[in-house]
Amino acid sequence: MIKTKIAIIGAGGLTGKELINLLAHHPHFQIVHITSNQVDGKHIREVFPDLSHLPDLVFQKHESPVPKEAHIVLATPNEVSLEKAPEFLSEGRKVIDLSGTYRLHDKGKFETAYKFSHTKFEWMDKVVFGLPELFREKIKQTNFVSNPGCYATSAILPIAILGNLRKKIQGPVIVDAKSGVSGAGGRTEEIKFSYTHVYENFRAYKILSHQHEPEMEEYAFVGSDPKEIHFTPHLLPVYRGILATIYITFDSPVDPKEIEDKLRSFAEKEPFVRLYPSPEDIEIKKVQNTNYLDIGFKMKGNTLVLVSALDNLVKGAAGQALQNLNLMFGYPETLGLVTI
Amino acid sequence: MIKTKIAIIGAGGLTGKELINLLAHHPHFQIVHITSNQVDGKHIREVFPDLSHLPDLVFQKHESPVPKEAHIVLATPNEVSLEKAPEFLSEGRKVIDLSGTYRLHDKGKFETAYKFSHTKFEWMDKVVFGLPELFREKIKQTNFVSNPGCYATSAILPIAILGNLRKKIQGPVIVDAKSGVSGAGGRTEEIKFSYTHVYENFRAYKILSHQHEPEMEEYAFVGSDPKEIHFTPHLLPVYRGILATIYITFDSPVDPKEIEDKLRSFAEKEPFVRLYPSPEDIEIKKVQNTNYLDIGFKMKGNTLVLVSALDNLVKGAAGQALQNLNLMFGYPETLGLVTI
Amino acid sequence: MIKTKIAIIGAGGLTGKELINLLAHHPHFQIVHITSNQVDGKHIREVFPDLSHLPDLVFQKHESPVPKEAHIVLATPNEVSLEKAPEFLSEGRKVIDLSGTYRLHDKGKFETAYKFSHTKFEWMDKVVFGLPELFREKIKQTNFVSNPGCYATSAILPIAILGNLRKKIQGPVIVDAKSGVSGAGGRTEEIKFSYTHVYENFRAYKILSHQHEPEMEEYAFVGSDPKEIHFTPHLLPVYRGILATIYITFDSPVDPKEIEDKLRSFAEKEPFVRLYPSPEDIEIKKVQNTNYLDIGFKMKGNTLVLVSALDNLVKGAAGQALQNLNLMFGYPETLGLVTI
Amino acid sequence: MIKTKIAIIGAGGLTGKELINLLAHHPHFQIVHITSNQVDGKHIREVFPDLSHLPDLVFQKHESPVPKEAHIVLATPNEVSLEKAPEFLSEGRKVIDLSGTYRLHDKGKFETAYKFSHTKFEWMDKVVFGLPELFREKIKQTNFVSNPGCYATSAILPIAILGNLRKKIQGPVIVDAKSGVSGAGGRTEEIKFSYTHVYENFRAYKILSHQHEPEMEEYAFVGSDPKEIHFTPHLLPVYRGILATIYITFDSPVDPKEIEDKLRSFAEKEPFVRLYPSPEDIEIKKVQNTNYLDIGFKMKGNTLVLVSALDNLVKGAAGQALQNLNLMFGYPETLGLVTI
Repeated sequence: MIKTKIAIIGAGGLTGKELINLLAHHPHFQIVHITSNQVDGKHIREVFPDLSHLPDLVFQKHESPVPKEAHIVLATPNEVSLEKAPEFLSEGRKVIDLSGTYRLHDKGKFETAYKFSHTKFEWMDKVVFGLPELFREKIKQTNFVSNPGCYATSAILPIAILGNLRKKIQGPVIVDAKSGVSGAGGRTEEIKFSYTHVYENFRAYKILSHQHEPEMEEYAFVGSDPKEIHFTPHLLPVYRGILATIYITFDSPVDPKEIEDKLRSFAEKEPFVRLYPSPEDIEIKKVQNTNYLDIGFKMKGNTLVLVSALDNLVKGAAGQALQNLNLMFGYPETLGLVTI
Repeated sequence: MIKTKIAIIGAGGLTGKELINLLAHHPHFQIVHITSNQVDGKHIREVFPDLSHLPDLVFQKHESPVPKEAHIVLATPNEVSLEKAPEFLSEGRKVIDLSGTYRLHDKGKFETAYKFSHTKFEWMDKVVFGLPELFREKIKQTNFVSNPGCYATSAILPIAILGNLRKKIQGPVIVDAKSGVSGAGGRTEEIKFSYTHVYENFRAYKILSHQHEPEMEEYAFVGSDPKEIHFTPHLLPVYRGILATIYITFDSPVDPKEIEDKLRSFAEKEPFVRLYPSPEDIEIKKVQNTNYLDIGFKMKGNTLVLVSALDNLVKGAAGQALQNLNLMFGYPETLGLVTI
Repeated sequence: MIKTKIAIIGAGGLTGKELINLLAHHPHFQIVHITSNQVDGKHIREVFPDLSHLPDLVFQKHESPVPKEAHIVLATPNEVSLEKAPEFLSEGRKVIDLSGTYRLHDKGKFETAYKFSHTKFEWMDKVVFGLPELFREKIKQTNFVSNPGCYATSAILPIAILGNLRKKIQGPVIVDAKSGVSGAGGRTEEIKFSYTHVYENFRAYKILSHQHEPEMEEYAFVGSDPKEIHFTPHLLPVYRGILATIYITFDSPVDPKEIEDKLRSFAEKEPFVRLYPSPEDIEIKKVQNTNYLDIGFKMKGNTLVLVSALDNLVKGAAGQALQNLNLMFGYPETLGLVTI
Repeated sequence: MIKTKIAIIGAGGLTGKELINLLAHHPHFQIVHITSNQVDGKHIREVFPDLSHLPDLVFQKHESPVPKEAHIVLATPNEVSLEKAPEFLSEGRKVIDLSGTYRLHDKGKFETAYKFSHTKFEWMDKVVFGLPELFREKIKQTNFVSNPGCYATSAILPIAILGNLRKKIQGPVIVDAKSGVSGAGGRTEEIKFSYTHVYENFRAYKILSHQHEPEMEEYAFVGSDPKEIHFTPHLLPVYRGILATIYITFDSPVDPKEIEDKLRSFAEKEPFVRLYPSPEDIEIKKVQNTNYLDIGFKMKGNTLVLVSALDNLVKGAAGQALQNLNLMFGYPETLGLVTI
């Protein structure tokens, strides 16, 4: 069987490593090209010693020519994805972009959140948001997928599952999320990510101003009326995993049974969504190194608390990208995701 | 100068250790009696090797006779405090109780939260809630102080500071708090507090059902109308420290300057409250081993996010107890609290 | 192709979990039976939520009947392995035992180290020590393999590689090893493995009296004269990984080039041994979740320092077991070990 | 009573913070001047928020004039101490230097270890090595103390205590030590001290080449014959604390009772040395935030294993400096060290 060839542009970081590992074990994909401007010239086994057993490849510069038949995974900074995605698409390649560049359809909100001018906004008509649980059919038919943010995934799905109950939400939805360092967006050489600053410590950051907040607002209410989301991320002294605690107040009583039914029927049909009867049993340890999104809830009066957890590098990044790639290329959706 | 004699009942745990250390270095207090039913017969230096340099004492059983002239700090389980506090008070001793037994004036809420019958409820008329920033003058004049819970302290003060703005709060106040293991109420021998279960992990617990929720509701709105608080605690893989993220929605626009003024004027007159202009600068590392409560805020539309941090064993327990003892015995309020 | 059927006796612990995960992804093995007296009656997905995607099985009691055609992996306590191994062997099954029961050929040393009487010592003539790098050919031909200890593996191989230089060793060999909690032999419910006792802490244990010391002495000098080994294990506040620092003094000068040649030629022919030119580059992070043993050295005068690292649950337990199973059943030695 | 005035040159780092905290609580010392070229112009409360309650001071540049009557603590880099110490001594001030500059009396070994030329070597005749347990009387009479290294302290004392038994040592003494990040000499902004590189990791560094090795060799054998020491430091994923495992082989049998007697009689007369009957009970947690050095031992044949532990920032740096200052100024040796 001929394998589908993949080039990973920007493969030298934590997400890149995860992508390499997942794709290398997938029966139908073959990595043919990897790039990194930081470690170009080095072998996979030098950059990631715990992947020494994988087929070896040498990192190239971002600008080096990509083999003709390769499709593209972009794990590059926003400004690089902005230019590269249209370029590769124009060459007839399929592209999945893990940056935030092609997620927001409101140009003003994009430029406020990302702080640079979006010069390729015409592509926003063509891109599909890569959340298979919501947009599976569109993903199957597109050449261009924008992979969701890790925090965004942890909040969008639990809210979207509420369906028509979303219309009864009163006041802003509060998303209080906590992430390990690999998902907190930090480059490891920054002082605030030093051992001394993270260990035995905890803090909030980008309160009400994180770039995933507009992403949540755009997609959590698809098919319903838009509502405000107030999002605060926090930095956990752990390596991987996100747990989000989501607070929703309804304008009138809602039967907990109705919530449970919606969550249960959703979880039953989704391969990577698991419902926990007791939300206190949800832990990031249970989702680490898996593509699962775990969800649960509790109610008191008109207030609903949703708890969700995922691995920011898997369901929050590389795993979800592979789930999308499977859909884009017609492979079984879970292929290569049952082993990490 | 004659020192004030103190007996610590229930001194063998983490709070007991903190109390011993603080009182041993205080110029006007002298520990004359310590009890623990777990480690009775042992010396301080055996139970807490890092306190070997302190004047040594042997742990007694809870029931052993307490020296006549001693005043009492209770760091005992709720059921023990229930009996012991009235007993010691009747003997003419001053008592400060660190358990939750004498905090709630609503008997029904108490029994729901603590799951046992409060047979000494007549004492609720006499006890003073030991939050010096709110009840300083009453504490100075009472013989019986109930020391606040660690989570409760982190939420009550930031909300109470809002003063008359509390009347404009719409819908429930959300308190999303995260604590290190020493404050999470867990006994270390439980499997859920094993290294394997806490390390590289994070979870919520007692969602909307923690016993500090009614305590917050009773004291955060003193002098205002009661409002609902929805509280979710989480377990951090750190040893000490609590960070609380509090979400409040007002029924109409509030000038952030007004919030800032209230917080600033409060912080300026309180020795142990610090205001951070940027709430992202608040970290549990900055309050560990101190008696400070750090606060900050951010607004967006009608939503206010308050962030607070404290050390659960100091301002959340033993440090606040000493602050109260200083007030009860007429010593300077900060004495012995500038060194931990 | 017909798969080889495997029963894992004692599959409910950390090593059991690792075995389940590895075997479930192996193309030629099929797990048909798993037992655990702690969690019998539960599903894999309940006990190990991060393995939910694997083919599900229900844990049985140790005593429940094992399917006829199944071969056996024992991950049971020593006393259970003692009885079970001969039983299964007598039924014509192949057996690999991960306990320490069948490793030492000196009965006295066994009983001193393990503190119980070895009533099946006749089987010590038949068992093969499962260190493929030293006993590959014997493993291929036996029905009964005793899988090495994790600490033992980290020390035996680096010393054995020295070959004829071992005769020049003067005085005892010092093995100072440090392990994460998953390899330190502790049951998680013990107080000494609580978060509070392990976090921000470090200690030595079983100094000069660990049961892997005689195992090192028996196998590190195979084909040479016996020497004394002095072994001290330490408990690291990490989850997985062992790093051993080994100190050897020679009776006369040895050319570092000779050491390097021996290590290099060994690493070149062994799929799971990697040589690091600078031993300071060896880290447990680089071997976690892999089957590699990393080695390096430094010399000063007549003293040689060897550094080695491995993942105690993989090369130190389940990975090495699979490497042995591959050999025992004639599959390629590295099959199923390049993905964890 | 008039307080002794102290200037801390180089007070902006972790040791500086510890010095500020200790001296601020000492009844007879007063900090009058602090310098740091990194944070000059900032207040103590800005640089160290958990020291906000201390008398506030503003950091000056290293070169700013030091108040006339102040004595000096140098916590500066080696090259700065080299120049500053003689300068301050010539002005008639007492000086204690925490750098490694004035510790080694062998110029060649110094220059090999520290990699720069020692241009003030004439001062090596005047300086006293600040290990009170060995050089108490000399420290009382000198104006110039060189404070020992943290690793060096953990190894020198346990070996020196052996007294005349040191003559029976055969072959090199092995010192295998493990330190938290605060003592590992690393600047926090280096990538190798990032959270991602230290957490869930462990490694050796500077194997047989650390600058404390010659320091150990010079002082561990004072009053005996020189012996070789082979020292390997390791980096623990903890914040503070060192545990050293020391391996010694004697040329003939030694009665363990003799070792015990030597250790016990030493510990009995030294306020900051504690003997543990079982060396497995020694933990870095027991010495954190204290000035204790904990020791214990185990023997097997002619091999002695010594275990020691200390807090690298206290007994390994600032606490030991204060112990020396107490001696230099005629105050009780333990003053200000029973509270950290």
